[in-house]
Amino acid sequence: MLDNRIAMATKVDLNADMGESYGRWTLGNDDALMRHLTSANIACGFHGGDPHVMRRTVALALEHGVGVGAHVAFPDLIGFGRRRMAATPDEVADYVVYQAGAVKAFAEAAGGRLQHVKPHGALYTSIVDSPELAHAAAHAVASLGSDVILLMPPAVAGAAGAAGVPFVPEGYVDLDYDAEGKLVIERAKKVRDPQ
Amino acid sequence: MLDNRIAMATKVDLNADMGESYGRWTLGNDDALMRHLTSANIACGFHGGDPHVMRRTVALALEHGVGVGAHVAFPDLIGFGRRRMAATPDEVADYVVYQAGAVKAFAEAAGGRLQHVKPHGALYTSIVDSPELAHAAAHAVASLGSDVILLMPPAVAGAAGAAGVPFVPEGYVDLDYDAEGKLVIERAKKVRDPQ
Amino acid sequence: MLDNRIAMATKVDLNADMGESYGRWTLGNDDALMRHLTSANIACGFHGGDPHVMRRTVALALEHGVGVGAHVAFPDLIGFGRRRMAATPDEVADYVVYQAGAVKAFAEAAGGRLQHVKPHGALYTSIVDSPELAHAAAHAVASLGSDVILLMPPAVAGAAGAAGVPFVPEGYVDLDYDAEGKLVIERAKKVRDPQ
Amino acid sequence: MLDNRIAMATKVDLNADMGESYGRWTLGNDDALMRHLTSANIACGFHGGDPHVMRRTVALALEHGVGVGAHVAFPDLIGFGRRRMAATPDEVADYVVYQAGAVKAFAEAAGGRLQHVKPHGALYTSIVDSPELAHAAAHAVASLGSDVILLMPPAVAGAAGAAGVPFVPEGYVDLDYDAEGKLVIERAKKVRDPQ
Repeated sequence: MLDNRIAMATKVDLNADMGESYGRWTLGNDDALMRHLTSANIACGFHGGDPHVMRRTVALALEHGVGVGAHVAFPDLIGFGRRRMAATPDEVADYVVYQAGAVKAFAEAAGGRLQHVKPHGALYTSIVDSPELAHAAAHAVASLGSDVILLMPPAVAGAAGAAGVPFVPEGYVDLDYDAEGKLVIERAKKVRDPQ
Repeated sequence: MLDNRIAMATKVDLNADMGESYGRWTLGNDDALMRHLTSANIACGFHGGDPHVMRRTVALALEHGVGVGAHVAFPDLIGFGRRRMAATPDEVADYVVYQAGAVKAFAEAAGGRLQHVKPHGALYTSIVDSPELAHAAAHAVASLGSDVILLMPPAVAGAAGAAGVPFVPEGYVDLDYDAEGKLVIERAKKVRDPQ
Repeated sequence: MLDNRIAMATKVDLNADMGESYGRWTLGNDDALMRHLTSANIACGFHGGDPHVMRRTVALALEHGVGVGAHVAFPDLIGFGRRRMAATPDEVADYVVYQAGAVKAFAEAAGGRLQHVKPHGALYTSIVDSPELAHAAAHAVASLGSDVILLMPPAVAGAAGAAGVPFVPEGYVDLDYDAEGKLVIERAKKVRDPQ
Repeated sequence: MLDNRIAMATKVDLNADMGESYGRWTLGNDDALMRHLTSANIACGFHGGDPHVMRRTVALALEHGVGVGAHVAFPDLIGFGRRRMAATPDEVADYVVYQAGAVKAFAEAAGGRLQHVKPHGALYTSIVDSPELAHAAAHAVASLGSDVILLMPPAVAGAAGAAGVPFVPEGYVDLDYDAEGKLVIERAKKVRDPQ
């Protein structure tokens, strides 16, 4: 019997976007969902998630032992960060540091730490498509601390490695990929059959 | 002759607001002024200072050995943070952590650290006037790290002490005080005779 | 039989706030409620209601023969326009013209017209409390056209009259009034027993 | 000598962008320049030009007999409207009506009228490049009134004609065109030799 001698090394990360409410507007059901996650991407004010929502969402994550991540986005509240913007690599790097720095402060204020950064929506797809933006984003994450993880698809692994950033490849189970393996961001998500 | 035996312990802090440009709009002459300061209050995006301006201003301060401070404000770009808003203590605390966290990340990314927090404009005067807001702001600063200083007038010393925040009292030389010793914030500063 | 000889002259205006969704965030159920109204106060982008929501809400109102009103507010998306801001009378007048002008353009583009202006939240209570702001708001409404109505409580009737603005006094059935007859705006509305 | 018998029918329109200050930030010298123009493109709040600046700029234009235009833009204050955004045709149409409606209200409040609409920065170049956006923008301008002119380069003439919008072709003297005759928008304008 060799079975017991083969250790299972794969750890499944249940990751979801959290804290996307804003002011008077509520989105999602973070209270019910958070307990089922291992890591959360917390909106940082640019596409959702005002400072008050951020504090509460970070606290909720830490209460359930969920890893705190910064869900950084383009500055586009009206478009919920789902529209591409022709931002320069420097601008993208600055947006990442600004937003992730804010999440980091809330996490540390609550006795936790910033575990990862995951770009949102159109910033995510722009970074996947542009080596320059991937490079800029990876260096921005590196500047946040040597243990902060960048959570992106494999296409960004090279940029992360070059910047010395811990990298975790990830995939979505509830979104579509196009023929080139790139994520298709829709403006309004559809319910779909996962078969 | 006893003169030489009395050491002068007072250190003068030359402190000014910096980084209040925003996007296409330039304000002040930070490049010329920074070299003359010992500490700078750097705008954090709520009244001025977009992320790109913040990165450059933090770098300029560190280059000249100037202490990096977060110039936190009400979220009021149109009013440049000079209009009072009826924000709750929790909201004020969250605004402080969010903005100062962003400055802290830029400072640490450049090899420096966040030295102090100084509220701006109407947030400054609101905190001076309200023990509840002073308490909230002091606890927010305390949560940013045990060595982060709160720079406010003596009226806030008690709240800072209760929160365990290092406190440095300060006064303006170019603004007016009213009969109760409270700062009068004008919407447009006048040139005045300092006699 | 005297019954038939007494004409009922009172016309009941069923008025409600509409179009307070924003980008990805939905608020209220305008589609279900609109058919029951005679006039709608449509958010104009400062506290809710982005341009796309505005166009759809104006169209929905006109489809049901509902009077189109501009629900003008302080520029405070995070606070949903429910926080007082120390705006000057000139600033209030400019905010009214800007927002109501946008609603007016959507109404005229759809073959309708701007019927009324009703201030929202903290702007509403500020105008009730301040004769200067009431004066400024009334003159702003007057400048939008001689037939545009200002919908406010009786306390503002004098300012409206002085500005030559058609005035319709109104009251809320689902909100509280304080001892001076002034509306109490809560940050989150409670369900209440109307007995 | 036939020279004197040939009447010159061309009228030169001296057109410039105005009102691009915002809150505490001043840009340009509108007071000095306005008197030399025949038409002004007035910023409407999305890339510059808060409501107070708009009122003053419209008044300045009317005082000098200068045609009032709406300088409509993408919602991008940080980027001054100079970054392309992947907005849909419907969103572009709604942004045009919203912003131009606000300028129209200020113009009519001051006894004038809205003469024209001219898109700004990245919205301008996006409309030149996309027949769908050109179509949407032209119909939006048509909905503002039958006499409102669309001021764009010849590439948009067809869309304007189809929408029934008065069209005036225009060109820039201080900007570059690329090999296809399309305007090159730089993030910071350079001084150039007009040879």
